[in-house]
Amino acid sequence: VRRDVHLERFDQLTGLLARMSRTVVTGIRHASTALLEVARDEVAPTMAAGNTVSALHREADQLVSVLLARQQPVASDLRLVLAAMRMSGDMDRMGRLAEHIAEVSIARYPRPAVPPEAHPIVRAMAEAATTLAEKSSLVLATRDPISAMQLALDDDVTDALVRQLFALLTAEWRHGTQAAVDVAMVGRYYERFADHAVGVGRQVAYLVTGNVVSGRI
Amino acid sequence: VRRDVHLERFDQLTGLLARMSRTVVTGIRHASTALLEVARDEVAPTMAAGNTVSALHREADQLVSVLLARQQPVASDLRLVLAAMRMSGDMDRMGRLAEHIAEVSIARYPRPAVPPEAHPIVRAMAEAATTLAEKSSLVLATRDPISAMQLALDDDVTDALVRQLFALLTAEWRHGTQAAVDVAMVGRYYERFADHAVGVGRQVAYLVTGNVVSGRI
Repeated sequence: VRRDVHLERFDQLTGLLARMSRTVVTGIRHASTALLEVARDEVAPTMAAGNTVSALHREADQLVSVLLARQQPVASDLRLVLAAMRMSGDMDRMGRLAEHIAEVSIARYPRPAVPPEAHPIVRAMAEAATTLAEKSSLVLATRDPISAMQLALDDDVTDALVRQLFALLTAEWRHGTQAAVDVAMVGRYYERFADHAVGVGRQVAYLVTGNVVSGRI
Repeated sequence: VRRDVHLERFDQLTGLLARMSRTVVTGIRHASTALLEVARDEVAPTMAAGNTVSALHREADQLVSVLLARQQPVASDLRLVLAAMRMSGDMDRMGRLAEHIAEVSIARYPRPAVPPEAHPIVRAMAEAATTLAEKSSLVLATRDPISAMQLALDDDVTDALVRQLFALLTAEWRHGTQAAVDVAMVGRYYERFADHAVGVGRQVAYLVTGNVVSGRI
C-alpha cells in the first residue's frame, strides 16, 4: 500500500505540472489577443487562467512538502520534486505576466495600447512567447532530453525582438509618452515570460539528465 | 559524527543565506548611487555583488539537494530547507534587479537617466527598497516572528510610489521618450526588488511559524 501511495503522489505532482503548463499557454494566448486585437472579452479568461495557475502552484507546493516529509525521496525522485518546485514557481510567474499584459490592454481600452508602428514586433514577441510556452508544456509531457536542452538555450529570438522594440522608443517615437511606456512594459513582460519558459526547459533537462544547465533567468 | 555533520550543513545553509542577504543590501546601495548620483564607479561593485549573490544561490541550491538526500529532514528542519530554496531564489533575483538598475544608469552615462522631475520619487523608491532589503536581512538573522510578519505585509509604500511615478509618465512629460522608458523600467525594477524582499519576509514567517503567508509576488 505504501508503494502505491508513493507512486500516486508522484503522479499527482506530474499531473499538476501538466495542467499548469497547459493553463499557462491558454493564459498567454488570451492575453495576446486582448492586447493585439483590443479584445476586452479576452481579459477575464486571462485572469481566470492566472488564478488557476496560482491555485495549482500552491497545491504543488503543498504536495512537495508532503512528498519530502513522508516519502523522503532520493536520486531521480528527489530531482523530480526539486525540479517541480522550481517549475511551479516559473509557471506561476508566467500566469501573472500574462495577467499584466492583459491589464495594460484594459487600461487603454478602447484605444489600442500598442501603436501600429510597434504592432509587428509585439506580435512576433507574442508568437515567440507562446511557442516557448507550448514547447515547455510539450517537453514536460515527453521529457525528451534533446528538446529540453534545446528549450533551455532557446531565448535568442525573444532577446533580439526586445532589442528591436526598445530601438523604436527613442526621439523618433511619435505616439506619446504613455504608449512608449506601455510598449516597453509589455516588451518586458513577454521577455520575462519567455525567460521563465526557458527556466522550465532547464528544469526538465535537470530532471532527465541530472545536470544543471547554467544561465540566469 | 553524523549528528555533527547534520548540524554543520544546516549552519552552512543559514550562513549562506545571511551572506546573500548582506550582499543584496550592498548591491542595491551601489546601484542606487550609480543611478541617482550618476556615479560610474558604482556600477562595477553592483555587478560584483550580483555575481556573488548568484554564486551563493547556486551553492545554496547544491547544499539543499545534499541536505534533502542525505539528512531527509522533517518538521522544522524541512521547513528551513524549503524556505531556504525560495529565499535564495528571491535574493538571486534581487541581485539581478540591482544590476539592471545599474545597467540603465550606464546606458545613459554621463547624462542622468532620471530627470530632476522624477528624481525625488525614484530616490524614495530606492530608500524604500533598501530599507526592505535591510529588514529582510535582519529578520533572517533574528527570526523574530513579529518582524517577519510585518515585513511579509510591508510593500504598500513601494506600491504607492510606483503609482506616483507612472502618473508622471503621461502627455505632460517633457523629458523625451527614452527618459520615460528608463524611469518606467527603473520603477519596475525597484518594485520587483521590494516584492522579493517581502517574499523573503514571508519565507522567514513560514520558517518560524509553519504558516504560509498568502499573497503573490
